[in-house]
Amino acid sequence: MKVKAYITLKEGVLDPQGKAVEHALLSLGFQGVSGVRVGKYITFDIQVRSEAQARDQVEKMCQKLLANTTIESYQFEIIQS
Amino acid sequence: MKVKAYITLKEGVLDPQGKAVEHALLSLGFQGVSGVRVGKYITFDIQVRSEAQARDQVEKMCQKLLANTTIESYQFEIIQS
Repeated sequence: MKVKAYITLKEGVLDPQGKAVEHALLSLGFQGVSGVRVGKYITFDIQVRSEAQARDQVEKMCQKLLANTTIESYQFEIIQS
Repeated sequence: MKVKAYITLKEGVLDPQGKAVEHALLSLGFQGVSGVRVGKYITFDIQVRSEAQARDQVEKMCQKLLANTTIESYQFEIIQS
């Protein structure tokens, strides 16, 4: 199965990279852009027996490694392949 | 409107960060994981008149700044808010 995980900074956590991108967009002449946040988009394959098992494993991966849950949130999708 | 952009390394481009995550997952005991790739997930708000204009602007942002099109691909979604 294919996994797509989205790791984002929690609301209220400062995002200097997002701010830098926002300033760069404005200097390039793109107007009306605000609230830029930069997160991670992690994709991989996982070999498991069922979608439920995949969900369980990926939940644990996010908790233990992929996200820093103090400052980051995560969401993921499992795609049957 | 809300924009969600996904920046990924093109196939064939080495991804050392992905490899590091893959090894870390395996050392933590997660089995059956392969092909880990780490990309960027960029979200922001844009004030434009129409969805077509948003698409056009975001396409240009990806080309000019958000993605390095030599080695990265991009996809994006526009969400009416």
